[in-house]
Amino acid sequence: MEISEIGEFGLIDRITSEMPLRQPSTIRSVGDDAAVIRYPDDTDTLVSTDLLVEGVHFDLTYVPLRHLGYKSVIVNLSDICAMNGIPRQITVGLAVSSRFTVEHIEELYAGMRLACEIYGVDLVGGDTTSSRSGLVIAVTAIGTCPRGEATGRDGAKDTDLICVSGDLGAAYMGLQLLEREKVASAGQKDFVPRFEGKEYLVERQLKPEARRDIVEILAREGIRPTAMIDISDGLSSELLHLCKASHCGCRVYEDRIPIDYQTAVMAEEIGMNLVTAALNGGEDYELLFTVPLHLHDKVSYLDGIKVIGHMTKEDLGCALVTRDGAEMALRAQGFNHMPQGE
Amino acid sequence: MEISEIGEFGLIDRITSEMPLRQPSTIRSVGDDAAVIRYPDDTDTLVSTDLLVEGVHFDLTYVPLRHLGYKSVIVNLSDICAMNGIPRQITVGLAVSSRFTVEHIEELYAGMRLACEIYGVDLVGGDTTSSRSGLVIAVTAIGTCPRGEATGRDGAKDTDLICVSGDLGAAYMGLQLLEREKVASAGQKDFVPRFEGKEYLVERQLKPEARRDIVEILAREGIRPTAMIDISDGLSSELLHLCKASHCGCRVYEDRIPIDYQTAVMAEEIGMNLVTAALNGGEDYELLFTVPLHLHDKVSYLDGIKVIGHMTKEDLGCALVTRDGAEMALRAQGFNHMPQGE
Repeated sequence: MEISEIGEFGLIDRITSEMPLRQPSTIRSVGDDAAVIRYPDDTDTLVSTDLLVEGVHFDLTYVPLRHLGYKSVIVNLSDICAMNGIPRQITVGLAVSSRFTVEHIEELYAGMRLACEIYGVDLVGGDTTSSRSGLVIAVTAIGTCPRGEATGRDGAKDTDLICVSGDLGAAYMGLQLLEREKVASAGQKDFVPRFEGKEYLVERQLKPEARRDIVEILAREGIRPTAMIDISDGLSSELLHLCKASHCGCRVYEDRIPIDYQTAVMAEEIGMNLVTAALNGGEDYELLFTVPLHLHDKVSYLDGIKVIGHMTKEDLGCALVTRDGAEMALRAQGFNHMPQGE
Repeated sequence: MEISEIGEFGLIDRITSEMPLRQPSTIRSVGDDAAVIRYPDDTDTLVSTDLLVEGVHFDLTYVPLRHLGYKSVIVNLSDICAMNGIPRQITVGLAVSSRFTVEHIEELYAGMRLACEIYGVDLVGGDTTSSRSGLVIAVTAIGTCPRGEATGRDGAKDTDLICVSGDLGAAYMGLQLLEREKVASAGQKDFVPRFEGKEYLVERQLKPEARRDIVEILAREGIRPTAMIDISDGLSSELLHLCKASHCGCRVYEDRIPIDYQTAVMAEEIGMNLVTAALNGGEDYELLFTVPLHLHDKVSYLDGIKVIGHMTKEDLGCALVTRDGAEMALRAQGFNHMPQGE
């Protein structure tokens, strides 16, 4: 069905009709000029906005719209978690070209709805409009943390430990795998991509998660990170952000970087240095954070969290310590989500 | 200068370096994963998101980037005002194709900065990314109102008065004028557009304002609207929204609709029915609201506010009462910002 048949308001009605509210803080949701939110006293409000642009952040030849919807919410929830917060609400702005049908947009929203359900977040507003070409998704996430407990990038001390959740490089390897199969499929009918034994990589790329569980675990254990950031552009880039903002240097140890077996196999297959993948591959959405040195034992025993190094005085710079003890300066290579034609 | 020369982070540094913070509620601004906001107890938080898409909402052949930046902020602040709120912060998401230079983006932000300055709003975060074609601007505005005093569309009673601020139709006539001069300029070097005597129309189209002053006046006078909406898609369309949400009908009087002299002259020139322009022309960003009948005298004497009609029982429908006493049903014509090619 063409979107023009039901119009913007018809589309919004369709999409939001089955959207239950879960947050007691949501006073007014979709359907007015603005959403109304009422947080308890003694909380701070967190706000973050991210754009996902077709042809830049995603390629619809291998990203199902439902997964895209899910991921577009997750990347924003991850930003709230990275401030030591719990996400509560989102707004969604959508610019859609005429090649998308009502059913397409419903698929996209099905993924958004699933993310909202799993994370207990309310979709409270937004805007849907046409675009001249392609799909642009703008999500704003709103959340809370206890007053004064937001964790920025600038609070690390030069003796702090550096911790990371989960494992790194898998989402990047998933992207390589999807790109490989896209090339292999060119011109072939009934092409079946080969993902066996690499399901984890595909999932990490297409369906990442926001580490709200880590925020909750740390709170439960009474561990307050001194600085935190989520890993969207690669460990190396995020470490440099933390160090710059905190006026510190750092040392991270190659043999401490958590890497999944499938990531290692894929790196081997495509002849890529595994550490490069883990340092520079983006979109893992794991949390990178620092804690005071005296919490070493406490944090080390937590499932899913690994101590990978420590901060230093600023003049020592930022380096990876390799297995043979050599130091390699970390570089801000950054991460381009997709090869850019323009 | 090409944006690629300084990169996303370089661009953000450049743009935000001169951005002073004005709101005591802004605890943390640009430069982290999320902004941190701390509102006083006893306020509700308002959130609204709007997209502006090149070729759909604006045409850069006659919209200067600085004006576009200004307007993209204003349309969002207007949504907060329409909830009886005061805007406090915004985030800005920008997708920019490679034909835009650093200087272009600085112009755009100069307009945003001016809007922030005039309205005392802080730009606290956002995202800048590349796009495959054109410019997409996603602004989220955040504001406050006293707890429980947000004014939705659904609170009007069937005896309430209908009020409107400012005058209507001028922004639409400004768009017609700009389109006319664009056509006239085609293929001509050194073309000078003819705007004499119509400066107000151009200003209304290119540099609209959010009626925060009206929200403040009403609060000062102790007048709390029962329902409110801002006029972005035309009076007719917004009246229908109010009536539908409030389960009412309405009667508005042709001779009560506030129209500026320049709007009337332009309508005459292009042979357009003036009332049609005032009813269906969008982008005036005036406030349309209802108040209880007993406030008639109080609201009538306020500068810049006009009583244009009254709500009715729902089954009486929504109609314009013409000068000769005839009733014309209001239609949801809506407003297309620009002629759509796709």
